[in-house]
Amino acid sequence: MAISKNQIKYVKSLQQKKFRQMYGNFVAEGDKLAKEILTHSKIKIEGVFASSTWLGNNSILFSNLATDVFEVSEKELGRISGLKTPNQVLIIAKQLEHSIDWEIVNNGLSIYLDGIQNPGNIGTIIRIADWFGIPYIFCSENAGELYNPKVIQSSMGAFLRVNYVSHEFEDLQNRLDNIPFYGAVMNGEDVFKMKLSENGLIVIGNEGQGISSKILEKINNQVSIYPHSLNGSESLNASVATGIICAAFRNQ
Amino acid sequence: MAISKNQIKYVKSLQQKKFRQMYGNFVAEGDKLAKEILTHSKIKIEGVFASSTWLGNNSILFSNLATDVFEVSEKELGRISGLKTPNQVLIIAKQLEHSIDWEIVNNGLSIYLDGIQNPGNIGTIIRIADWFGIPYIFCSENAGELYNPKVIQSSMGAFLRVNYVSHEFEDLQNRLDNIPFYGAVMNGEDVFKMKLSENGLIVIGNEGQGISSKILEKINNQVSIYPHSLNGSESLNASVATGIICAAFRNQ
Repeated sequence: MAISKNQIKYVKSLQQKKFRQMYGNFVAEGDKLAKEILTHSKIKIEGVFASSTWLGNNSILFSNLATDVFEVSEKELGRISGLKTPNQVLIIAKQLEHSIDWEIVNNGLSIYLDGIQNPGNIGTIIRIADWFGIPYIFCSENAGELYNPKVIQSSMGAFLRVNYVSHEFEDLQNRLDNIPFYGAVMNGEDVFKMKLSENGLIVIGNEGQGISSKILEKINNQVSIYPHSLNGSESLNASVATGIICAAFRNQ
Repeated sequence: MAISKNQIKYVKSLQQKKFRQMYGNFVAEGDKLAKEILTHSKIKIEGVFASSTWLGNNSILFSNLATDVFEVSEKELGRISGLKTPNQVLIIAKQLEHSIDWEIVNNGLSIYLDGIQNPGNIGTIIRIADWFGIPYIFCSENAGELYNPKVIQSSMGAFLRVNYVSHEFEDLQNRLDNIPFYGAVMNGEDVFKMKLSENGLIVIGNEGQGISSKILEKINNQVSIYPHSLNGSESLNASVATGIICAAFRNQ
């Protein structure tokens, strides 16, 4: 089945937040991610657009799919893709609804992203959470959106296992039993030299501004990575800092 | 002084590797980076293109500059910029020549990037090296180039303090006194649970393929981060892995 002009327009519209919100759908691209999504039990597929080769090789993945499967030419894929180098397949799926198990949050480790904007950073942090077995990432309303295609692509499927939920900090705080808050700052205590608890919320601030003052005053433990004043470096990338802090927690 | 069509063409050409190599120059953009470069003793500036406001505020930085300073309109800056959102100033400078102090390399920690391609990852790894006081990053010939504008922008000035030098692995090995090689792999020893030496070379492999087999066989210590098989995550981002391994070394 060839695709129509209207379909091209529709798929491309999902590169924009307002249309993602309007339709409740998102786009994911590439062989590996498509396979992960198609084999995921909770995701509802809305459309598959792929090369004839890919469809031939992967027919088992969508033979029972109650949705439209379109064979597209390389040129057509280029027209609907958000990637510089389109990769065989593009999938449209329904956005997931996240339910929060507060007992898990209260007894384990979670991450809070305060105004993190860069979609590559958000995707990378979702991958980090997945790696370290952290099931919840909460974020402020001004943080980037999960279904931004750059977040989805850079999370590399980790968004299927980690919950990324927008939640204002005060409201979140009210839901939590007094668990410790750890905030990544420039001149805090060395995260590798302190006693870390098994549960808690790791707060990561915006790339440029750090943690907002309103949230910072709620934080019991200000932590830093290898604090020093030896050289000119000003900060680590937000996702790198998150990875190092998570490693410190998991290696206590 | 307004800029000519030929100048626009020249500045834009530096977005491409072949022209950077031909002229031996590179481009850096934005207020912060421009200030760092203009105040750096070793960098030779070839041109400054900035808004009248920026020039007015920062005249002290280039009053003694034996080079051309151009006032550009927002529109002109947009035409020469490689950024989505041009930021006040663009600088052209001569590429640095790196000399290697092998005694420092032999007695300290260095990083080797085996085929790392993503310019954002390379810039972020340069920032990590800067943060942890690691003066040398070596890379294979097929790794990304330092002066790619995306590397320069994401390194955020760290490239001024860290040496990023292309060096084939075998040749590098011949230059080193038997220092330990640590390679980041999927199923190695937990980097936080082993004894790490104070000197050594941390080898980070390509984003998709990992460390090439030719190099892997030279590595004495295969290390991993939080090795586990609990969930579906396949890997950490290369720069995040580098950051965590460097943190492990610095927190021995």
